[in-house]
Amino acid sequence: MRNIKLTIEYDGTNYLGWQIQPNGETIQRVIEDTLKKITSEDVHLIGSGRTDSGVHALGQVANFKTNSHIDIISLQRALNSLLPSDIVIKKVEEVDLEFNSRKNAKSKVYEYRIFNQEIPSVFLRSYAWHIPQRLNWIEIKKATEILIGEHDFSSFRSAGSSIKNSIRKVFSAEWRIEREGLVFFEIEANGFLKQMVRTIVGTLIEVGKEKIDSQEFKKILVSKDRRKAGPTAPAHGLYLKEVKY
Amino acid sequence: MRNIKLTIEYDGTNYLGWQIQPNGETIQRVIEDTLKKITSEDVHLIGSGRTDSGVHALGQVANFKTNSHIDIISLQRALNSLLPSDIVIKKVEEVDLEFNSRKNAKSKVYEYRIFNQEIPSVFLRSYAWHIPQRLNWIEIKKATEILIGEHDFSSFRSAGSSIKNSIRKVFSAEWRIEREGLVFFEIEANGFLKQMVRTIVGTLIEVGKEKIDSQEFKKILVSKDRRKAGPTAPAHGLYLKEVKY
Repeated sequence: MRNIKLTIEYDGTNYLGWQIQPNGETIQRVIEDTLKKITSEDVHLIGSGRTDSGVHALGQVANFKTNSHIDIISLQRALNSLLPSDIVIKKVEEVDLEFNSRKNAKSKVYEYRIFNQEIPSVFLRSYAWHIPQRLNWIEIKKATEILIGEHDFSSFRSAGSSIKNSIRKVFSAEWRIEREGLVFFEIEANGFLKQMVRTIVGTLIEVGKEKIDSQEFKKILVSKDRRKAGPTAPAHGLYLKEVKY
Repeated sequence: MRNIKLTIEYDGTNYLGWQIQPNGETIQRVIEDTLKKITSEDVHLIGSGRTDSGVHALGQVANFKTNSHIDIISLQRALNSLLPSDIVIKKVEEVDLEFNSRKNAKSKVYEYRIFNQEIPSVFLRSYAWHIPQRLNWIEIKKATEILIGEHDFSSFRSAGSSIKNSIRKVFSAEWRIEREGLVFFEIEANGFLKQMVRTIVGTLIEVGKEKIDSQEFKKILVSKDRRKAGPTAPAHGLYLKEVKY
């Protein structure tokens, strides 16, 4: 028995997210089906975590057990030639049998992309959130610093979420403004609640639009009340960038 | 009567190119249909030139005559709210009645994007030519310099083209290699033959793969024989960047 770790890039536009759903295509299912063709086995892929419908990945990690003797390089080539062009296996590694891509994850890095210009870009329509208004970046950055450290993130999670422990530790959260209106938000934490990044970004943009200021942002975090936070930023700006072990 | 100039960005992936075709959606037709909705007139759009199926534009230019009194800002807003998200009007200007976007063009700038890494990128699959091999960039740049100036570009044109005068003047042609394997080729000329940029790029990549060297590239140019040049680079890496007047 071998344990294989995959690092995966995908364009989430045409999928119902990572995890297998009763109706509709998911990334997990497409990769499992492809692995079945290659190994002739019923492969069960363990992902580091779910990504929602429309969310992208630059470095999703998943692992699976197999009895196949196929070498790593041939496996990567076979996968990339059989998978649709919106899923690419960036790396294939053989790892310890104990490795579990979900349970062993020490931290995750998400990136959120915003296109902040009056006129939208056709090339970013599925890859960044278009915000035409001018934003107060100084106030956004002030509010962002409040996220660093260990907090109860109940205010910044999907309303329908059932997981009890909502305390997470944010290691870093930073904005990088590039030329021509392209803005990157990067956040690293030991874990994320459902829609946590998108709710944080949606609320930080309310700060940028000066609907609330950084002190009110702090109050929202402390309140542990989802109804106080801003709207959920759209899925198509979000990227699972890296999973660290 | 007014004359309106549009600067247009489009993602060519889902279109049969700029110019109206008997069967299939084209960018010209979609914009004309939208202008008809706004102005209630049968608008005829004059583009600076055709772009092939799958080719993109960062700054295509087109103009049309109208009796409509709609102001420039309202027209741009109406167009961008009615057009599909893969066509965006970047700029609307009122120009002299004599202005003709095709006849008055002094030069055009095309950009060709290559993704030169072993593993493809899902996000560039429709926006750059993926070339996994290592390329000899020094030799490519040497060959590129040969293009500068006035030449008969018969070797670098579509086989089926009928235009008689194949002499064009190339003002500049440069490669810019960015981080992470993304490479940009920019070429400015007083005009381009059908598929000229794609045939030039296809042949320069043969130089990069060391199938031919820069001296042989020069011989191909001088030969005026299309059969001697390399393959046509794929349409999805090409962008009409700017039209100068």
